[in-house]
Amino acid sequence: MKVSELGEFGLIDLLAKMIPDSQAEKPVIGIGDDAAAWHSDAPVQLATVDTMIQGVHFSLDTVTWKELGWKSLAINLSDIAAMGGTPQYALVALALPEDTEVEDVAGLYEGMIELAGQFRVGIIGGNVSRSPVVSITITVLGDSLSNEILKRSTARPGDTIAITGYPGSAAAGLEMLTKKLQFGAETATYLRSAFMRPKPRITEGQLLLKLGITTAIDTSDGLLADLRHICEASGVSARVDVDRLPIHPAVSNNFGERARELALSGGEDYELLFTGSAEIVERVRAQMEYPVTAIGEITAGEPGKISVVDADGNPAEINKAGWEHF
Amino acid sequence: MKVSELGEFGLIDLLAKMIPDSQAEKPVIGIGDDAAAWHSDAPVQLATVDTMIQGVHFSLDTVTWKELGWKSLAINLSDIAAMGGTPQYALVALALPEDTEVEDVAGLYEGMIELAGQFRVGIIGGNVSRSPVVSITITVLGDSLSNEILKRSTARPGDTIAITGYPGSAAAGLEMLTKKLQFGAETATYLRSAFMRPKPRITEGQLLLKLGITTAIDTSDGLLADLRHICEASGVSARVDVDRLPIHPAVSNNFGERARELALSGGEDYELLFTGSAEIVERVRAQMEYPVTAIGEITAGEPGKISVVDADGNPAEINKAGWEHF
Repeated sequence: MKVSELGEFGLIDLLAKMIPDSQAEKPVIGIGDDAAAWHSDAPVQLATVDTMIQGVHFSLDTVTWKELGWKSLAINLSDIAAMGGTPQYALVALALPEDTEVEDVAGLYEGMIELAGQFRVGIIGGNVSRSPVVSITITVLGDSLSNEILKRSTARPGDTIAITGYPGSAAAGLEMLTKKLQFGAETATYLRSAFMRPKPRITEGQLLLKLGITTAIDTSDGLLADLRHICEASGVSARVDVDRLPIHPAVSNNFGERARELALSGGEDYELLFTGSAEIVERVRAQMEYPVTAIGEITAGEPGKISVVDADGNPAEINKAGWEHF
Repeated sequence: MKVSELGEFGLIDLLAKMIPDSQAEKPVIGIGDDAAAWHSDAPVQLATVDTMIQGVHFSLDTVTWKELGWKSLAINLSDIAAMGGTPQYALVALALPEDTEVEDVAGLYEGMIELAGQFRVGIIGGNVSRSPVVSITITVLGDSLSNEILKRSTARPGDTIAITGYPGSAAAGLEMLTKKLQFGAETATYLRSAFMRPKPRITEGQLLLKLGITTAIDTSDGLLADLRHICEASGVSARVDVDRLPIHPAVSNNFGERARELALSGGEDYELLFTGSAEIVERVRAQMEYPVTAIGEITAGEPGKISVVDADGNPAEINKAGWEHF
């Protein structure tokens, strides 16, 4: 059945019924009123919004609706992770062509609900519109039990720069999908999942905050581009030691010389890039169950300037500088 | 200059600089980090999201960018008004074709900022994406100092049904614009403004709550469609007395027999439709500076069933039943 046959209110009703009651803290008012309402005792409230647009952020040729649902929510949860916060609720604004299959929209919601359930996030509102292309705009509301939050503006010269996970994996996954590259099952699964099912680093962000880290960003635009955001906000420069980049074997074994470029410039990993004293970064590395790697140092200098050097301290060659929308 | 020449981060920077610092309560973190952060002591948090899509909700042939900015925010503030709450902050997700003029986007922001200033709402975050059509998705975050909020689900048989303002004015304005109808300056200004510059009834919603009203909705889909939302959520029926509908002279004098149909079924007025005991509704009418009219009564019966009757109690003829998206 097409969404045009079910109608706007029928679709909203169907989606609302898919959401398990027990998944999250019960709001005062959920789907079905003018606004969502909930109680919060936390001292700091957090909110973030992100959009996925067909033909720009995804192609329905290479992604399933369920993966799309997961990723649309994941990129927003990742923003809350980058503040060290706890996501609580989500509002989902869908724009859909009239001939979209209801089954596909239900698949989208399945992916979203699966991820939401892992972090006890409640989907408590949203909006459905007609549109020439599919677009999914999700707002995530969260909070922080601490008055401290992770910011972009607090990096200081001498800070160690570190990153969670394996940068470049998502970009390698995108390349595999768009260029229809053929790999073994394990590699293909890893790369597809890195691009389509990023895992928001919520518990990792909270651990950073707990251990005294104050500066973090999630890597959506690419490692260098996101590091530049930190450097510009903090008024500092940075040095990245290219030989220390943690590149996953699925990428290093299959993308040759391009692996480094993917790690430096490939977007959409949704890992946490953070800075702090060498001691605290080491403590993070020791306590986090997920991989953490030190990859460089914040330096004094022109705000936003980043040098990428090899093991001998010589400038390394790099190409692209991250994703901009226009 | 086109947005593609300025670039994503250049555009975000330009828009962020347009927002006056003093306009709202200062957030902990505004534009330029992964998520926005703010303090709130209010017992109830509110959030709502709404989207305006080119070719579906507006045409750039009949609306200025500044009007579009106003309306995109207004429809969300209106949702907070319908809860009796206070809007605090907004997140703006823009999707724009690459060849959009930067000047036009700045105009859009001017309209938004003008309205935001009237209610001390801070624009503290958002997102910019490339897209084949213009789309504006705004999330408004608000709160309520009272544990009570206005809901759709609390209407009871015997309640008087009342509405603020003049229903049908926005639909008449849309018809004037799309059919290029020619009216005198005063009428044309009223109708255009009713459609393009709806005024969110924030103070009116708060007064409703203060005087003991518990049931309200804002009229976005049309009076009958929105009354049906209340009736379905409350499990009641309703009777609308068509002769009591407050129709603005600009509509009644120029749209003949269609005036009533516009008032019953025309969408996008963003007035408050509410129910309560006759005594409380009378108290609201006496104390509100803005017009309030009793138009019918909640009755026991099939949930969502609405009868429209004339002064003799006979069924009145009506046509369309409000706006659905598919």
